[in-house]
Amino acid sequence: MILVINPNSNEAVTAAIDRGLAPLRRYAGVEIAVCGLDGTPFGIESEADGQAAVAPLIAMMQAAQAHAYVIACYSDPGLAVAREQLGVPVFGMGQAGLLTAKARADRVGVIALSRGAIVRHYRMARVLGLDTSLLYEEPVDLRVHETVDRDASMAAMLAAGRVLRDRDGAGAIVLGCAGMADMRQELAAALAVPVIDGCQAAVAMALGQIDG
Amino acid sequence: MILVINPNSNEAVTAAIDRGLAPLRRYAGVEIAVCGLDGTPFGIESEADGQAAVAPLIAMMQAAQAHAYVIACYSDPGLAVAREQLGVPVFGMGQAGLLTAKARADRVGVIALSRGAIVRHYRMARVLGLDTSLLYEEPVDLRVHETVDRDASMAAMLAAGRVLRDRDGAGAIVLGCAGMADMRQELAAALAVPVIDGCQAAVAMALGQIDG
Amino acid sequence: MILVINPNSNEAVTAAIDRGLAPLRRYAGVEIAVCGLDGTPFGIESEADGQAAVAPLIAMMQAAQAHAYVIACYSDPGLAVAREQLGVPVFGMGQAGLLTAKARADRVGVIALSRGAIVRHYRMARVLGLDTSLLYEEPVDLRVHETVDRDASMAAMLAAGRVLRDRDGAGAIVLGCAGMADMRQELAAALAVPVIDGCQAAVAMALGQIDG
Amino acid sequence: MILVINPNSNEAVTAAIDRGLAPLRRYAGVEIAVCGLDGTPFGIESEADGQAAVAPLIAMMQAAQAHAYVIACYSDPGLAVAREQLGVPVFGMGQAGLLTAKARADRVGVIALSRGAIVRHYRMARVLGLDTSLLYEEPVDLRVHETVDRDASMAAMLAAGRVLRDRDGAGAIVLGCAGMADMRQELAAALAVPVIDGCQAAVAMALGQIDG
Amino acid sequence: MILVINPNSNEAVTAAIDRGLAPLRRYAGVEIAVCGLDGTPFGIESEADGQAAVAPLIAMMQAAQAHAYVIACYSDPGLAVAREQLGVPVFGMGQAGLLTAKARADRVGVIALSRGAIVRHYRMARVLGLDTSLLYEEPVDLRVHETVDRDASMAAMLAAGRVLRDRDGAGAIVLGCAGMADMRQELAAALAVPVIDGCQAAVAMALGQIDG
Amino acid sequence: MILVINPNSNEAVTAAIDRGLAPLRRYAGVEIAVCGLDGTPFGIESEADGQAAVAPLIAMMQAAQAHAYVIACYSDPGLAVAREQLGVPVFGMGQAGLLTAKARADRVGVIALSRGAIVRHYRMARVLGLDTSLLYEEPVDLRVHETVDRDASMAAMLAAGRVLRDRDGAGAIVLGCAGMADMRQELAAALAVPVIDGCQAAVAMALGQIDG
Repeated sequence: MILVINPNSNEAVTAAIDRGLAPLRRYAGVEIAVCGLDGTPFGIESEADGQAAVAPLIAMMQAAQAHAYVIACYSDPGLAVAREQLGVPVFGMGQAGLLTAKARADRVGVIALSRGAIVRHYRMARVLGLDTSLLYEEPVDLRVHETVDRDASMAAMLAAGRVLRDRDGAGAIVLGCAGMADMRQELAAALAVPVIDGCQAAVAMALGQIDG
Repeated sequence: MILVINPNSNEAVTAAIDRGLAPLRRYAGVEIAVCGLDGTPFGIESEADGQAAVAPLIAMMQAAQAHAYVIACYSDPGLAVAREQLGVPVFGMGQAGLLTAKARADRVGVIALSRGAIVRHYRMARVLGLDTSLLYEEPVDLRVHETVDRDASMAAMLAAGRVLRDRDGAGAIVLGCAGMADMRQELAAALAVPVIDGCQAAVAMALGQIDG
Repeated sequence: MILVINPNSNEAVTAAIDRGLAPLRRYAGVEIAVCGLDGTPFGIESEADGQAAVAPLIAMMQAAQAHAYVIACYSDPGLAVAREQLGVPVFGMGQAGLLTAKARADRVGVIALSRGAIVRHYRMARVLGLDTSLLYEEPVDLRVHETVDRDASMAAMLAAGRVLRDRDGAGAIVLGCAGMADMRQELAAALAVPVIDGCQAAVAMALGQIDG
Repeated sequence: MILVINPNSNEAVTAAIDRGLAPLRRYAGVEIAVCGLDGTPFGIESEADGQAAVAPLIAMMQAAQAHAYVIACYSDPGLAVAREQLGVPVFGMGQAGLLTAKARADRVGVIALSRGAIVRHYRMARVLGLDTSLLYEEPVDLRVHETVDRDASMAAMLAAGRVLRDRDGAGAIVLGCAGMADMRQELAAALAVPVIDGCQAAVAMALGQIDG
Repeated sequence: MILVINPNSNEAVTAAIDRGLAPLRRYAGVEIAVCGLDGTPFGIESEADGQAAVAPLIAMMQAAQAHAYVIACYSDPGLAVAREQLGVPVFGMGQAGLLTAKARADRVGVIALSRGAIVRHYRMARVLGLDTSLLYEEPVDLRVHETVDRDASMAAMLAAGRVLRDRDGAGAIVLGCAGMADMRQELAAALAVPVIDGCQAAVAMALGQIDG
Repeated sequence: MILVINPNSNEAVTAAIDRGLAPLRRYAGVEIAVCGLDGTPFGIESEADGQAAVAPLIAMMQAAQAHAYVIACYSDPGLAVAREQLGVPVFGMGQAGLLTAKARADRVGVIALSRGAIVRHYRMARVLGLDTSLLYEEPVDLRVHETVDRDASMAAMLAAGRVLRDRDGAGAIVLGCAGMADMRQELAAALAVPVIDGCQAAVAMALGQIDG
């Protein structure tokens, strides 16, 4: 089993992640389970929100006995701790999304929830050792729970995507929040560049490392 | 169909790639085909070898009508041209292997065929914008065709892996040649760190981006 | 008041930090208080140890009403959360030590507790945007509680310092653990290069930003 | 004694530096002296101005017998020579300001006198090994002597600070000229982000390294 | 003989390169020959165009018996292969232009043909290990064959040069296409900054390495 | 006239520079003059030596009316001032040597006089924005005046060159002192990699930018 944990308590986000993983369920013999995490913030929108999610996240992982885990929040809360504590692969959707985008294009754009999120995202990219002069981010000024409302957020996301593609030359665009998963295909079609959802990217990486 | 093209004419390498992809064939509804390329060098061991493979590689891709392609040689010959000319995703096993390893650990080691290959690999990492002060490579001084002979090459590969893990602190190790695919599991068990085969990594990335 | 919090529960480490700050107590009108943190690990030697300290650390800060805080552990646990949640300056001893060393010399060496700690330290340096090809670390293979035993640890620390100075050309050396504070002057005298204790460095930075 | 040397001959700048250091004079037992330098340019506004200050600066240092020195000009003229020639710590206000700002926030902004100054500042940052893609500068188009005239320069400085904070996401702002010291508190209050004066930062670093 | 090969089949570009090299023909005893390449694209404006030029380019070099070669296209097609296969120096006009500009100024601007060319240029700069946060490019949206028409292209080139000089602080400007060679002197006079033609720069480097 | 100024007072070094430039004197119509500088140190072996040379160097340049200048010391003393003050091109042999070597190979080695010189050289490389993880230096522990004595220094230089080529994979080697110019051809022959003298490289760059 690959267990994908949404470290917030917003069930609409958990459901959006689950829908986005449907194509990967064609892979036989490996269950791909998605769950939320009770008692965590309704959306991870700050350092404190991320911190609040770590202890229940690690506890769930230690109990779950999965073959691999995905932390389904773009800021990858608890990733270093989980990787150290668990004997199985752990992927963060932020890292996986960014690295997969780099496999599609040199210059990568990220649609971020807010200006504050961008500072956190750059930190994650620098931890990876990525040259941040090739990384472009554009905020949509949405809350996490608003991202799952397609009607309310698609216009802002399209506008941000166009800025990243046309102003910055981004050849691939990453969704900077798990709640945006449902909009991936529509954005990719409208922007005509690859659009990457980090949860899908992380689960695909995990499938690629299951031994035969 | 995902078409994985070994851009050399060594059928033993093509067969090793094919065996390495077996676990990913559990993915229903998408054929994963592997082929070699007639008229190309017996192993890609120089810039000239890589260059010689590009034209037949692009020609095969343009004829094949696959949904995604993987260039199954660690130096990713023809990747930029293929990406520009084809309307579908194209992954290079070098980029995919290196980026997937970064999703497992900060410091990544690569088992390279030779000292000359290391210079080419670093160039690829810099094109990606990766900080090469976090990348460690160790050569085994083998030819491409020797890598598919497990008995002849395993001792050298284990020794290189230990150097990368213990001297350099590499937390994940990438196989620097497609012919090494068969040894992935045995190396991972012996070294107790994740060992990444770029072909598997690339096919997994490709599966992750198939629309539902 | 500047409150310096040792986020482990080892009172010998807390005492060593306190002694190291004596010279800075010549600054009139600002109390420099040092405390440990009950219920935290005996030493921060892993990602999990650092994580376990964050919640009590933030709780203590939010209760304390100090004018500035110093997190007195080289891996700076909770720094980003504290900075976000508190309206006053928060310094990490790791960041402050490393940045102060850069103000003394281009090439900086760090005496690290262990090889595992080095990977965490480099991550912190990259978050700061420091070029890690100018940063050198050498482990002493000590536990946190051993560092406060001068007789047991001085020989290993001197040896590591000489390697950093002579092999790597480090022009300033940082103590990679709060427990090493007592040895700063003796090491500086023996090595004839500046030796930086991050707690002293952080408190000095904090004093420099108190308004008149 | 810590001797802070303004390497230009503008007495109003020297006086502003001196006022800015008042809070640090609460430190008992260490005199903090500030002086100008006769025969040097009226402001350091070019490479040639900086060069002209070096010989008299080094001569004054070699005569003064202080326990530490601060070069009180943001371009740090003569810093490498002074560090080599003197057996005591020497801090440059540019380096100290920039590094202290990095201890407050990932992204740092600098209010520069002019576009020409920005090119010099980036060079200094690169010498330190700082990633300049995280450094933002905004010119105010003032001469050195104008910076000490609060009425004439505050509006331009506030405007530059807002650009750095809002457009670039700078979480800490550095004053790019010693003459700006008087405005630090007012700017910090108006911008609601930390504002760093390099002279204060350098003297604080020096105090942090006085042996008990 | 230094053989300068224009890897496209546009004779007007070849002639412009040849005129630009006139001053270097004052060097006695070394012929500087310029030629085009039949059967190649009319301008190198894509990855595929560059790839199509490599085989005939290498073949011409292997037949020509020159003492040094210059590949006279800013994207340096075939440079790595040529360097490996030939026992004499091979310079690319892109690398030579960019590196020579760095010898004139820290911040370098490039007048690029198009937005697509900029992505390729940055890749080349990263391969060299240049910090791309100091590299600025501005497109003129011209085709290769239009660059040799001074009347049609000078206004756009001047405008791009002013943006690079004034907005980005570029202290030297590189012509991003071999066809622009004729405009070098006029642009340098109008912009009052050094303007570098990579072909001239590459031939000068080659002359500097001929043994006496 | 291109005026090459050796900023030390060692006439044997000046003579070695002059001999090294002989091949470039085939360039008709441009005199290439070489001179020393009275009253400067006998060798530039420290920051203070470099500083002592700047004022007489700039004075000589301002009097000389040359069309271009080369500062013939690997640490490029006075380069920024000279470039600012003079209306004609000024090249430093350190920058020119390093950048020309990058046009020959990705990985560059430098034979440095001493460990102290290496720290200064890296600083220069960082100012240029070069990735220092691709730069390798090896000291020979010679004084400047010893470098002009072929018998005394060739063995050490060959040994250093072999280390750079074989251990570090350097594909081009730069002579880290002007006094080494006479040994360039012999080293290149013995090492079978390009060996670059920065004075030749700088004069060649200067010739490449003389207008027709």
